[in-house]
Amino acid sequence: MQISELARRAGVPVATVKYYLREGLVPAGELTGATRARYGEEHLERLRLVRALLGPGGLSVARARAVLAAVDTPDTSVHAALGAAHRALPGVGPEGTADLEQARAVLRRRGWRVAEDSPALVALAAALEALRAAGAAPTDELLDRYAEAAGRIGEQDVADVPTGSVAEAVRFVVVNTVLLEPVLLALRRLAQEDASRRRFPGDC
Amino acid sequence: MQISELARRAGVPVATVKYYLREGLVPAGELTGATRARYGEEHLERLRLVRALLGPGGLSVARARAVLAAVDTPDTSVHAALGAAHRALPGVGPEGTADLEQARAVLRRRGWRVAEDSPALVALAAALEALRAAGAAPTDELLDRYAEAAGRIGEQDVADVPTGSVAEAVRFVVVNTVLLEPVLLALRRLAQEDASRRRFPGDC
Repeated sequence: MQISELARRAGVPVATVKYYLREGLVPAGELTGATRARYGEEHLERLRLVRALLGPGGLSVARARAVLAAVDTPDTSVHAALGAAHRALPGVGPEGTADLEQARAVLRRRGWRVAEDSPALVALAAALEALRAAGAAPTDELLDRYAEAAGRIGEQDVADVPTGSVAEAVRFVVVNTVLLEPVLLALRRLAQEDASRRRFPGDC
Repeated sequence: MQISELARRAGVPVATVKYYLREGLVPAGELTGATRARYGEEHLERLRLVRALLGPGGLSVARARAVLAAVDTPDTSVHAALGAAHRALPGVGPEGTADLEQARAVLRRRGWRVAEDSPALVALAAALEALRAAGAAPTDELLDRYAEAAGRIGEQDVADVPTGSVAEAVRFVVVNTVLLEPVLLALRRLAQEDASRRRFPGDC
């Protein structure tokens, strides 16, 4: 297909496709003339992945390039590519160099194994530190309850990952990891509102 | 107690206490001289609530004042005060004027009842809209799974609310609603990482 059709099918302006081509985020097409090139389905798939990384994923061009490099590594495993994508995503909480011990203990109790330098592990430790600083140190029981709920969701999230291609899998993970986060938080607040109404009936 | 002890027990500088007094966030003490006042336990409790609202809660002084007004309303119900605090908190996702229907449908299936104009309901609708725009419209099954997990957590969150005083309840809700959000998101990402490792074993 020509660049105009590629752009149309991906739902982006031609100028945007040209920008991605210049930045090397989408590989060049096959030249069919001095100013014309032909693109295939693999370009469309890549274009959609780039859109997901820069849009919902919130990645910079440089970070998107790093994720694409992982996707393009020959014989990369899906887990390695997903890990690269996960690492590149914006963080989920406060930053800091908190003590990792309580965070690690939660994982041990659930039997979860993650990378020593997992950004989510550091984020969990920083969030726990913020709670302690606010005089609201969480109990192990509370953390285990949260971990159990997160575990059910996370397990199924990964089960839903399409395995047709590494690019497709990475796109799915980026979009769903980031865009389902506000869904989860909004649902928790709604559940709290409903529970509060039932538990504290009165003048409302 | 004098202002110095009040500040010490709340863990804040005296200058900060004076600022809160000037802003009317903490009520004046009982005058015991031209420049001296005496403060009681109710001042300490209020000071801790103000710290929670402005710190972890991330509220502006104006929003904090609105929450405090709800807390101070005579015979206010805990549900009404918690609702005022919930509403004043920073949002959890994209903003927008999305169609609320799919969001309402999730709540109906769970039997949850919330205010027509609940900010979390609008946030959920906006998050669902963002997913659709990214070509990743969630299925009802996925939403129900998320809602079930959020429901277990939210129910217990509310069960944990201390009921000694409205101020204490509001402080707990503000701190725990906001500061446990990154905990939940980090745990979900960690669960995904562990599940990915198990599901896609390979070169990692």
